Amino acid sequence: MGRWQPDSRGRLQEAALALYSESGFDQTTAAQIAARAGLTERTFFRHFADKREVLFGGSALLQERIVAGVIGAAPEDGPLDAVACGLAAAATMLGEFRQDLSRQRQAVIAANPELRERELAKLADYAAAVAVALRQRGVSEPQATLAAEAGMTVLRVAMQRWAGGKDGPDLSVIMRDSVAELRAVAARP
Amino acid sequence: MGRWQPDSRGRLQEAALALYSESGFDQTTAAQIAARAGLTERTFFRHFADKREVLFGGSALLQERIVAGVIGAAPEDGPLDAVACGLAAAATMLGEFRQDLSRQRQAVIAANPELRERELAKLADYAAAVAVALRQRGVSEPQATLAAEAGMTVLRVAMQRWAGGKDGPDLSVIMRDSVAELRAVAARP
Repeated sequence: MGRWQPDSRGRLQEAALALYSESGFDQTTAAQIAARAGLTERTFFRHFADKREVLFGGSALLQERIVAGVIGAAPEDGPLDAVACGLAAAATMLGEFRQDLSRQRQAVIAANPELRERELAKLADYAAAVAVALRQRGVSEPQATLAAEAGMTVLRVAMQRWAGGKDGPDLSVIMRDSVAELRAVAARP
Repeated sequence: MGRWQPDSRGRLQEAALALYSESGFDQTTAAQIAARAGLTERTFFRHFADKREVLFGGSALLQERIVAGVIGAAPEDGPLDAVACGLAAAATMLGEFRQDLSRQRQAVIAANPELRERELAKLADYAAAVAVALRQRGVSEPQATLAAEAGMTVLRVAMQRWAGGKDGPDLSVIMRDSVAELRAVAARP
């Protein structure tokens, strides 16, 4: 796992997650987050458009990485193998985030229906982008959408397993294992 | 496919979907829906708590049916086979809804981010309930969650295929076929 840099952005993120956990997302203000991080509210808004972006700010980059992983898969890879390459790229990026902060993030989102809906909408966006990349590889429908959506399910489940476990295996290992579990589930008994 | 009954509830549903399609969900009022159906606003609110419930009113019953299907699966069925039994039950219930209205419903939801998020949240609820039913069958984690979530992906994709195709195969056939496609996608190439 990479090192988390205690820069302004990182300090704001850490302060926000602590406050969201303690007081609830709706009850926390940007001013409180800035104060907790020892920074000004103006600095907060230089880094984040709003409170929600603290939780979802990395999603455009994450989507790019996932799609790049799919595009970079070997030409002979099947649909789910290509998706697994995208998931490996996601695991590399997400695995650099501190596991304790990921755990807080998951708990904050799980506790708030509006944030849960937003998280699901992001995953649906990733799935749509992955399905496009798969179709460009020649995968037809409905296989492209099914593989993409199933892959995003794996991403979500793997993130929960990772954030839930203390000092467990790293996210890349959990991601690979979760893909294998999906294969096992889908195989005829 | 069953017959749609032109009762008050059905007339309100048809009027609402027509107005949501023509004017947009946000722009439509309960009063307009009632007027279009030739009924009073009071009658509207006897059938639906709000505008959104016209679109999502059947979801508690649908979840019950899916879970009952999973519980009723043969003891020797694997996780995805059990989920497929739940999906078959869903297809029976949903297939009784008029295909043209389903098509309108899908289009209305797809056009409105808030409704899309709500739809995804409902599917996540079904998945959570299915995962509980699978664990009660002795399926361990993460397989229970993966099978449940993958199943709800199949439900969504199958619904889209059904609503999108005119006079195509009925929903039960599309649902079975979509499960088979998921198995094909997940199989090692």
